[in-house]
Amino acid sequence: MTDAATNMRLKLPITCFILEIILIILFGVLVQYDEGTDAKEWHHTNHSQYENDFYYRYPSFQDVHVMIFIGFGFLMTFLQRYGFSSVGFNFLIAAFALQWATLMQGFFHGMHGGKIHIGVESMINADFCTGSVLISFGAVLGKTSPVQLLVMAIFEVTLFAVNEFILLSALGAKDAGGSMTIHTFGAYFGLMVTRILYRPNLDKSKHRNSSVYHSDLFAMIGTIYLWMFWPSFNSAVTAHGDDQHRTAMNTYYSLAACTLATYGMSAITAHDGKLDMVHIQNAALAGGVAAGTAGEMMLTPYGSMIVGFLAGVISVLGFKYLSPILEEKLKIQDTCGVHNLHGMPGVLGAIVGAVTAAVATTDVYGAGMADVFPDIASGDIQASYQGVRQAISLAVTLGIALGGGLIVGFILKLPVFGAPPDTICFEDSIYWEVPGDEEGHEDQLTTVRTTETEKLNS
Amino acid sequence: MTDAATNMRLKLPITCFILEIILIILFGVLVQYDEGTDAKEWHHTNHSQYENDFYYRYPSFQDVHVMIFIGFGFLMTFLQRYGFSSVGFNFLIAAFALQWATLMQGFFHGMHGGKIHIGVESMINADFCTGSVLISFGAVLGKTSPVQLLVMAIFEVTLFAVNEFILLSALGAKDAGGSMTIHTFGAYFGLMVTRILYRPNLDKSKHRNSSVYHSDLFAMIGTIYLWMFWPSFNSAVTAHGDDQHRTAMNTYYSLAACTLATYGMSAITAHDGKLDMVHIQNAALAGGVAAGTAGEMMLTPYGSMIVGFLAGVISVLGFKYLSPILEEKLKIQDTCGVHNLHGMPGVLGAIVGAVTAAVATTDVYGAGMADVFPDIASGDIQASYQGVRQAISLAVTLGIALGGGLIVGFILKLPVFGAPPDTICFEDSIYWEVPGDEEGHEDQLTTVRTTETEKLNS
Amino acid sequence: MTDAATNMRLKLPITCFILEIILIILFGVLVQYDEGTDAKEWHHTNHSQYENDFYYRYPSFQDVHVMIFIGFGFLMTFLQRYGFSSVGFNFLIAAFALQWATLMQGFFHGMHGGKIHIGVESMINADFCTGSVLISFGAVLGKTSPVQLLVMAIFEVTLFAVNEFILLSALGAKDAGGSMTIHTFGAYFGLMVTRILYRPNLDKSKHRNSSVYHSDLFAMIGTIYLWMFWPSFNSAVTAHGDDQHRTAMNTYYSLAACTLATYGMSAITAHDGKLDMVHIQNAALAGGVAAGTAGEMMLTPYGSMIVGFLAGVISVLGFKYLSPILEEKLKIQDTCGVHNLHGMPGVLGAIVGAVTAAVATTDVYGAGMADVFPDIASGDIQASYQGVRQAISLAVTLGIALGGGLIVGFILKLPVFGAPPDTICFEDSIYWEVPGDEEGHEDQLTTVRTTETEKLNS
Repeated sequence: MTDAATNMRLKLPITCFILEIILIILFGVLVQYDEGTDAKEWHHTNHSQYENDFYYRYPSFQDVHVMIFIGFGFLMTFLQRYGFSSVGFNFLIAAFALQWATLMQGFFHGMHGGKIHIGVESMINADFCTGSVLISFGAVLGKTSPVQLLVMAIFEVTLFAVNEFILLSALGAKDAGGSMTIHTFGAYFGLMVTRILYRPNLDKSKHRNSSVYHSDLFAMIGTIYLWMFWPSFNSAVTAHGDDQHRTAMNTYYSLAACTLATYGMSAITAHDGKLDMVHIQNAALAGGVAAGTAGEMMLTPYGSMIVGFLAGVISVLGFKYLSPILEEKLKIQDTCGVHNLHGMPGVLGAIVGAVTAAVATTDVYGAGMADVFPDIASGDIQASYQGVRQAISLAVTLGIALGGGLIVGFILKLPVFGAPPDTICFEDSIYWEVPGDEEGHEDQLTTVRTTETEKLNS
Repeated sequence: MTDAATNMRLKLPITCFILEIILIILFGVLVQYDEGTDAKEWHHTNHSQYENDFYYRYPSFQDVHVMIFIGFGFLMTFLQRYGFSSVGFNFLIAAFALQWATLMQGFFHGMHGGKIHIGVESMINADFCTGSVLISFGAVLGKTSPVQLLVMAIFEVTLFAVNEFILLSALGAKDAGGSMTIHTFGAYFGLMVTRILYRPNLDKSKHRNSSVYHSDLFAMIGTIYLWMFWPSFNSAVTAHGDDQHRTAMNTYYSLAACTLATYGMSAITAHDGKLDMVHIQNAALAGGVAAGTAGEMMLTPYGSMIVGFLAGVISVLGFKYLSPILEEKLKIQDTCGVHNLHGMPGVLGAIVGAVTAAVATTDVYGAGMADVFPDIASGDIQASYQGVRQAISLAVTLGIALGGGLIVGFILKLPVFGAPPDTICFEDSIYWEVPGDEEGHEDQLTTVRTTETEKLNS
Repeated sequence: MTDAATNMRLKLPITCFILEIILIILFGVLVQYDEGTDAKEWHHTNHSQYENDFYYRYPSFQDVHVMIFIGFGFLMTFLQRYGFSSVGFNFLIAAFALQWATLMQGFFHGMHGGKIHIGVESMINADFCTGSVLISFGAVLGKTSPVQLLVMAIFEVTLFAVNEFILLSALGAKDAGGSMTIHTFGAYFGLMVTRILYRPNLDKSKHRNSSVYHSDLFAMIGTIYLWMFWPSFNSAVTAHGDDQHRTAMNTYYSLAACTLATYGMSAITAHDGKLDMVHIQNAALAGGVAAGTAGEMMLTPYGSMIVGFLAGVISVLGFKYLSPILEEKLKIQDTCGVHNLHGMPGVLGAIVGAVTAAVATTDVYGAGMADVFPDIASGDIQASYQGVRQAISLAVTLGIALGGGLIVGFILKLPVFGAPPDTICFEDSIYWEVPGDEEGHEDQLTTVRTTETEKLNS
């Protein structure tokens, strides 16, 4: 006795199959191996096998890959009965988004004789774009069907590629770790979508919108992996050599400082001094977000630590005081608090990046200036103007994210995608065969669900 | 009050100690550091420290290592009361098999003046061989004692090395990711073993042969790690340069397409459209298996996606419709459904590899042909003949796997290895000290066990 | 109704904020990018971007990082109601310790014009030092407040750096994987601390000092990650080339042999032959500890296996027979049994290292001698004298660890750090907001806690 509206038997297969067939056709027509992956091209020129970019990007790629699938996936398992969906829908939309992003980013990043060339760097960029979609997923977690999420991914990936093109190619901004392109964009896009999908009666599912003991431990797997591999994330596509090295190290110290700030703030904002898992799971990561733009710059280790510290403070304050206001006053139901982990820290990171760029000098960067700020090195622009570019980029990102989220939110509101009713949000059993747990608790849930569904059907 | 037959107090220590002592003696007599690991040999020739193969294989090795110990180990924790055994026996037999495989593979891959030379590449190959044993473990999961598993590993590793030698050295086939050598071999070997060990009364343990909510989440840790690192698996021992790079990327796209196929098929084959965790945990990985042979070839990205898509479709159909038939008609009790994840996708991968090899042209591969198909590049054979080699290799693999499984199955049937009785399969407490869980559930299980054991003893 | 003494509302924030501010100031004054991370310095000399040490150390660093945060963190989640604290306090003290270690190690390892230079190698060393603190954390697990742990970390990191300086710089010992500097030091320091903090009435919390089914599975995540990445740990800071390669491989075989020994010993020491999760989770890792000093030497593969085998045997025997004696007779309450995993195997590793060094010959090492034993290669000392250096280093380590632990133990005894009362040890809810679990079990715990706290207050 399943509600016809949320039954995925036809909706999900049709969506998956059509999308994958379109992807295969477009890949067949448009996509080619790049020089590093093509047997003929690679052997065309004379170089050592060891110079293949595989050896200098692939370990970073795998770390990023873990963040996307384990990090984001398990971070969202904190809900008591939404673990299957958190990991499972994360898996599904990421597997789609990375293919679609290959096409969209390839299209905007420049075609080669009408063809998109791919290799390990495009794989990292596709994973990055996917990360942005998963951030938005965090905002709507528990309130959307898998078909809605795939539709959201189609549009968000496209807008991500447009925004990324404007920032990096048209405006000449720097954003290797994606404080703007990934975090700010993903967060404000998702917040606008969840605003449009506002559910006044969501408190009917309130009892499921919380964690249990073991679900919080599963979520910590996600948190810790994100935290550990963030240095790889921010440094994955910077220039080789000192740039990658420095970016990883800046991020490492930013995160360490952020963690101490998070623990301190979590205890001080609790009336009984007890630590809150929500803060630890999320705010401790804000230092990675905030180092996304300036991480590759000569931010200095202590500068990184200051940035991380501020990010942790802001993030905990957001969870504690701002999120309830956003929900009550602005009707933004942000399940995972992405505004606190990705939104505000992303904006902070963008500002830090703008300021750090504006004060760049040849005295500090030496010949390394060409890698970080090629236009300053070539004398085309002043450092201060690079700062302006960065600031404009933040504004553009916010505009496209909010505007895009507005439109996509209304699209997702169409009553054809099988969204769950208000009474059965944050509940796996609406889209999954759920086994019992040790004490037969699932039977109760199933009963509740069936009853609710009957009501809906009657 | 433990059943004497399943008591491991002497059987397991004797097996472990004798095996390890034999290994140590054989290593002492036969094994030497290779050029990259020996202090004297490495410094004998003049090269940069950075040319040591460690830097170009070790990150891949570690990804493979994670797949073997976390991937396989946790994938099998889906059973409600078999998590200790799944992770723990996986750990034990893998630790044994990788040592034994070093010797067996070293023996067949060619000795150097009577010595086996080892380094990071032999470590990867030993892990690969171990993976094959773990696939067979999946078929017999819950129905075997640790001593049986170690005995199975002794024989399976040996036969694996023989088969691998025939395929790669004698026949000149290509199979870098092991669609044939690892997956097809491991699956059909295990299926034959479980056929011989058929238990007509296994339904007495039926209530434990299923998952609970959290055990499915633990299993997803295994699934996602296998999925993420499969590109490293397939590319770990290919030629350096474009080959490794291309193999990783082909596998990445094959898996992504497979995931969409899996979700679509899982929903469409369920009468109420609900996703089944068994499919997601397993079938989404079939794209990695199916890209094991052709991944290093110029399969093209869209070709990889087609292969992955087909693998996902076949795998879900196998779980849904074929597995019940295999159990009822052919008496094959395949606990993890390895036929659907490794068997059929492995055969698919072998066929794709044969076809892709048969159509290889210098126009496509250029000077890179020498890395992928040295015999075609040297003009010794035509591409079509390479296809024939590949097809013969599949047949040989199936023959050795089924024949070997038959013999080993009968060996494992000897009533001296402490196999669990039909009533206590899929149950940790027969071989492990099991703590209670939060609500004292273990007490009940223990009671059940004790009662059953008493019956057996009386 | 929270006990004022254990309330962290002011204590923890003040500690975190003061520490982080001091760190930021000291980093600002003392720390600079090294040649590989500084934009100007790196481009000052003429070399390929691919020669940056990032590419030859960073993958090892990330593996070590996973061991520190996931490995140690989850290994300690075996306790039924202490998972938040195990992972969470591990996270907090590691994030602090790695910053503080950067300063302390930088100070002792040699300043450059009054500045500490940092890069990926210093990051690995900081993680190593952090590992030592986490070993000590294992000894006092469940009985300490986060403020106590931070205070312990301040002193332990400092003493670690002193001891490391004496061993590696003053005495000229070799200890790349830290059998002495990390494991022996961390274990005996922690054991002395827990001795000083002895609680005669700890049996009041005895019912919580054990595992439940799922907590043991979470702990296995930690175990398996430590096991898999230990080859990276031991090889992370050895010389490049054959040294790193050989160290990783020696550790791999040592661990494999250790695992078989552990399973055998666990079964043989149980009266009913059942495997004990405590042994598997811990003793199987002893082979990595014991290969920490000699791993980079020409230990040979079979030599590594003998060392690993012995380590596993010793470790299980320690858990089974020695730990109860230490607790009853010597009043050492060692929650995680770090004496068995890090203490005795660390001493074994130190001895193996001394012996292996003492028998080093140019015949075996060739020109590679300069990398492993520079003083022997240069003819300054005999190999036997290197063995003496190693032996003295072990004695020095034990002395500083025990002396330091004694003093720090008394400092931690000061009644101002919010240690938990004897009745509420091994319990998350004293420092964390704990959600209910599925069957409302937490309510009971909370009730217990509140009652106990009321008693204390009255």
